[in-house]
Amino acid sequence: MINQSSKKVRRGGNFGERYLDAIQKNQSFLCVGLDPIPELIPAGVDVKEFLRTIIEVTKDLVCCYKPNIAFFEQFGRDGWDILFSTISTIPEEIPVLLDAKRGDIGHTANAYARAVFDELQVDAVTLNPYLGFDSLEPFFSREDRYSFVLCRTSNQSAVDLQDLQIGEIKLYEKVAELAQSWNKFGNVGLVVGATYPEEAQKVRDICPDQLLLLPGVGAQEGDLELAVQSAVKSDGGGILVNASRGILYAQPYNNGCAVGGWAEATRLAASELRNQINKAL
Amino acid sequence: MINQSSKKVRRGGNFGERYLDAIQKNQSFLCVGLDPIPELIPAGVDVKEFLRTIIEVTKDLVCCYKPNIAFFEQFGRDGWDILFSTISTIPEEIPVLLDAKRGDIGHTANAYARAVFDELQVDAVTLNPYLGFDSLEPFFSREDRYSFVLCRTSNQSAVDLQDLQIGEIKLYEKVAELAQSWNKFGNVGLVVGATYPEEAQKVRDICPDQLLLLPGVGAQEGDLELAVQSAVKSDGGGILVNASRGILYAQPYNNGCAVGGWAEATRLAASELRNQINKAL
Repeated sequence: MINQSSKKVRRGGNFGERYLDAIQKNQSFLCVGLDPIPELIPAGVDVKEFLRTIIEVTKDLVCCYKPNIAFFEQFGRDGWDILFSTISTIPEEIPVLLDAKRGDIGHTANAYARAVFDELQVDAVTLNPYLGFDSLEPFFSREDRYSFVLCRTSNQSAVDLQDLQIGEIKLYEKVAELAQSWNKFGNVGLVVGATYPEEAQKVRDICPDQLLLLPGVGAQEGDLELAVQSAVKSDGGGILVNASRGILYAQPYNNGCAVGGWAEATRLAASELRNQINKAL
Repeated sequence: MINQSSKKVRRGGNFGERYLDAIQKNQSFLCVGLDPIPELIPAGVDVKEFLRTIIEVTKDLVCCYKPNIAFFEQFGRDGWDILFSTISTIPEEIPVLLDAKRGDIGHTANAYARAVFDELQVDAVTLNPYLGFDSLEPFFSREDRYSFVLCRTSNQSAVDLQDLQIGEIKLYEKVAELAQSWNKFGNVGLVVGATYPEEAQKVRDICPDQLLLLPGVGAQEGDLELAVQSAVKSDGGGILVNASRGILYAQPYNNGCAVGGWAEATRLAASELRNQINKAL
C-alpha cells in the first residue's frame, strides 16, 4: 500500500554521526532552514531550482539543512514532490532535519514517524511535547534518527504556556527535565530560541549532553554571541544555529541584481554567519 | 506559485453552520475519523475506494468527518492526492475537520493555515497550543473556519504536561481559559478525551459556549454516557463525539465476510454509536 518508488530518495539515519562529520568538515555550526516563500523567491526562478541553488552554494558551509514542511504543504499536492526533490538534492554527508513539530497519540504517532523517517527519509525531526511521552516514543525508538523536542521557542507568545510556573520551575524547564529522562538512546535534543539566552543557559544546565537547536538568530551579532555561549556544551559543541530567511533571501529579489546575484548574496550571508558563530565560541 | 488547479476540491468554510445543519438533519453528534490503516483495510480494496465507501454508507449518520493527516502522509507522495480525493468525496453539507495538530511560529503558521484552509479547503482543524497565541492566530483569524485546540488528550501520557499544577489549576485548565479568551470570533473549540469525563466537565465549566471534540470513545457504553453528559452544553449540544477505528474497521477484514460485509458492519456500528450518544443526552 505504501508507495515503494518513493523510498529511494535518501538513506536516512545516523544523524549524530553525520552532524559530527559535517561540523568537522565544514567547520560550521550553521543550520540553514529551507523555507520556500513564493513572494521572496527571485522572479522567474522555479522553487525547486531556487532551493537546489541555495543548497549548491552553501553545502560546504553548513552542519545541517532544516526544511520546514509547512512551507512545502502550502503548495498543496505539489508540496511533497518539491520536498522530496529538495531532500534528494542535499549531499548524503549533510544531515537533514525536518521541522514538522509533530506529536499525536498512539497509532497516529506511528504513522507520522513512518511518514518522516521512512517516506521522506530524513535524519531528524522536531516534535511538540504537549501530548507527553507516548506521543513521542515512536520517534525516539528510532535509534539511528534524532528528535528535537520544542522547549522554549523564539516567538513572543512562547510565554503563554512555556513560562508558566510549575512549583519552583517553569514549564519549559520541566520539558527540559522530561527530555533529559527521554534521552535513553542519546537521540533526543531540544529547541531553544536564540532570542532567549538566559533560558538557553537553563536548558543547557538541565541537559548537559543533548543537542540544542537554536532558531531565531537575528541581525545583532551581540545577541548571537550570547545565545551561542549560553547554549554550547562544555566541550565546545552540541549546538545547531539555524537561520532561514536571513540566508535564503539575503539579497532582496526586487533591487535589480543580476541573475546569480541572489545566490552570491546567500553564500556570503551563510559564510559570514558561520564565521560569527565560530568567533563567538 | 501556488497550484491553482488544486483549489477546486471543495468550498471550505462556515463550519459552525454546517455543523448545526448536519446535527439537525442527521440527528447525530457522531464524528467519523477517516484514518486509513493499510493493515486493516479489507484485502484487495484500494484505499481511496475504501474511504469513499465508508463515506457513502455513513453520510446520513454523522455531523462531521475528521481525516487525520498523519494516516495520509504515511503514503508519501501519494498521501495528499488520496486526502484531496477523500475530501472531495464528502458531501458539501457535512463539515470536514482536519486532524493535523498544527502549531508553529509567525510566517510558518501562516503557511500551515494556507495549506489546510486554502489548499485542502477543510472547514476546521485541530491545533497544538504549546507555542501560544501568535502561533494559532493565523488560524483563528479565519472567521469562517473553526479551530479545535488540544486541551486534555485521551492518551496515557497526557498527564506528563497537561496535568501539571499551575497554582490552583492544572495546565489543561489554563489552556481552556486561554482558549476561552481566544474565542473572539466564536470559532475556537477544544479537544478533550472522552476517556476523562471529570476533566471534560471542568473544561465545559470554563468554556460554556465552545464546541468540544471528544475523541477516544471506547467500547463501554457507560463511559460514553458519562463523557457525553460531562461535555454537553446546557442547551443539549456543542459536542462532536469522534470514533475512528471502531467504525472504519467494525468488521475484521480477515474473518471471511463477503465483499460488502465490512461496509454493512461500518454502517451498523455508526448507527448504533449515533443512537447511543443520543440516548445519553
